[in-house]
Amino acid sequence: MTTQEKLAAPASGFSVAIVGLGLMGGSLAAALREAWPEARILGVSRRAETVAEAARLGWIQDGGTVLDEWVPSVDLAVLATPVRTIEALVGRAVSLLKPGAVLTDLGSTKAGITGAMTRSGRSRDCVGGHPMCGRESRGLEAADAGLFRGATWVLCPTRDSDSRSVGMVSGMARAVGARPLIFDAAEHDAIVARTSHLPYVVAASLARAVAATVGLADLTSLSAGGYRDTSRLAASDPAMMLDILLSNREHLLKAVGAMRKELDAVAALLEAGDEAGLLRILEEARQQRRLP
Amino acid sequence: MTTQEKLAAPASGFSVAIVGLGLMGGSLAAALREAWPEARILGVSRRAETVAEAARLGWIQDGGTVLDEWVPSVDLAVLATPVRTIEALVGRAVSLLKPGAVLTDLGSTKAGITGAMTRSGRSRDCVGGHPMCGRESRGLEAADAGLFRGATWVLCPTRDSDSRSVGMVSGMARAVGARPLIFDAAEHDAIVARTSHLPYVVAASLARAVAATVGLADLTSLSAGGYRDTSRLAASDPAMMLDILLSNREHLLKAVGAMRKELDAVAALLEAGDEAGLLRILEEARQQRRLP
Repeated sequence: MTTQEKLAAPASGFSVAIVGLGLMGGSLAAALREAWPEARILGVSRRAETVAEAARLGWIQDGGTVLDEWVPSVDLAVLATPVRTIEALVGRAVSLLKPGAVLTDLGSTKAGITGAMTRSGRSRDCVGGHPMCGRESRGLEAADAGLFRGATWVLCPTRDSDSRSVGMVSGMARAVGARPLIFDAAEHDAIVARTSHLPYVVAASLARAVAATVGLADLTSLSAGGYRDTSRLAASDPAMMLDILLSNREHLLKAVGAMRKELDAVAALLEAGDEAGLLRILEEARQQRRLP
Repeated sequence: MTTQEKLAAPASGFSVAIVGLGLMGGSLAAALREAWPEARILGVSRRAETVAEAARLGWIQDGGTVLDEWVPSVDLAVLATPVRTIEALVGRAVSLLKPGAVLTDLGSTKAGITGAMTRSGRSRDCVGGHPMCGRESRGLEAADAGLFRGATWVLCPTRDSDSRSVGMVSGMARAVGARPLIFDAAEHDAIVARTSHLPYVVAASLARAVAATVGLADLTSLSAGGYRDTSRLAASDPAMMLDILLSNREHLLKAVGAMRKELDAVAALLEAGDEAGLLRILEEARQQRRLP
């Protein structure tokens, strides 16, 4: 526990730059402000108004719109932009890090990012990260210091990440209430293609298949909680999701293929009137929807 | 309001037989016990223990396992068994009704049942019904007097249903807190194929597509609320759902086909790397997931 406590409360003067102040980055700033009151939290955003708002909320002490001005001074830099922007920023961010500083990120897919970290020349100072939490709403106005509490925070070290880097990032994750879990980047991407990106594609496709023939009045009257829950993810931010889906295209295409195969199996059994076969599939699905 | 109040509180001595004491029938018994304290509520179930348990709970005053013994005396008979059993029971139940008595049901699909009602020879005394509510759990032990509160209760008259029949059934629906909505049976079935049965098939297929490659430990660690909500309906009772799906096979096959088409469109755009096209589809889906 001593090690944990030390990691969870870094030396006074410890500084963090959060690049991207949307839902995830803003929530991290807010959470670190509470968890690490002694630390200096800086924010970088494309829009000056976002930086000003985060400062007004007291979540960052300082910041601006230019990466180069804020990354060089910090002990820990966190890339919290959309995932393909993170991939593009890694090389530049690493080149700005002072000696001994660490780089991590909050992107939803990891192989592209840890690949860029590995190629950056300072891969031992880099650790990919993915807090498994989110909201349908976006932007700093949706940020919440409690967002990470109880969530799994996946850490994907590069082949060279040293224990100091991994310790620093996992300490931050624990400090904001998350449970760090070290995972291989490629394996992570294959799994979240099914547990996270496929459910979104399924929800969006369901919303479209329903809207194709059912008008709003009938949908309002003739749907219950089932449609609401099954389609909920379709309300996610399309631009953010597009970015995630494209960054995990190969795994997602396989997952969508598996989903189509399952739907085809149901359709074939229905068509054939094979009651026993259909019942077996539905019973297996209930078993397979295993949740803690 | 006078008419409503009169319908909602029938003459003392009014009697109702509920055939099938599972989640829906049991909940109706419990709700009517509260809403119509003067009425006599009878229950019929295949299992004598279920009848005894409903009586012990105070939800029915009397009942048994043989339809013929309990339907002839009542003013209103409600078939609350699985949907294909309702279709099979309609003719017999109608033949048992005393003059002036009314028959309705709680089945999730309506064309087959209202067809049987139309062929029964007393179609003016029959009105199909579908309370749009449910739970994943099943059986009398899951029953709840509040189940219908705020729910839409679809009424599907036959071509000949008279206003007295429709009034009696809508009065019962209002009495237990539901909102009666009169709807054509075939139209109802086409809509719920998309708003209710398709979401179940999608959730079950998603659970299977995920379980095909993701083990329980990884699923537990690497999924968030999205998978949980999108797959929730997969936990429904398979035997009950099988019955519903088979009773709405033609409409459901079209709905699964539409879903399949939407997934194909996403896969094609992903494959082509067509960012603008994919974004448009995802934005439309968010718009189309219109909920009150």
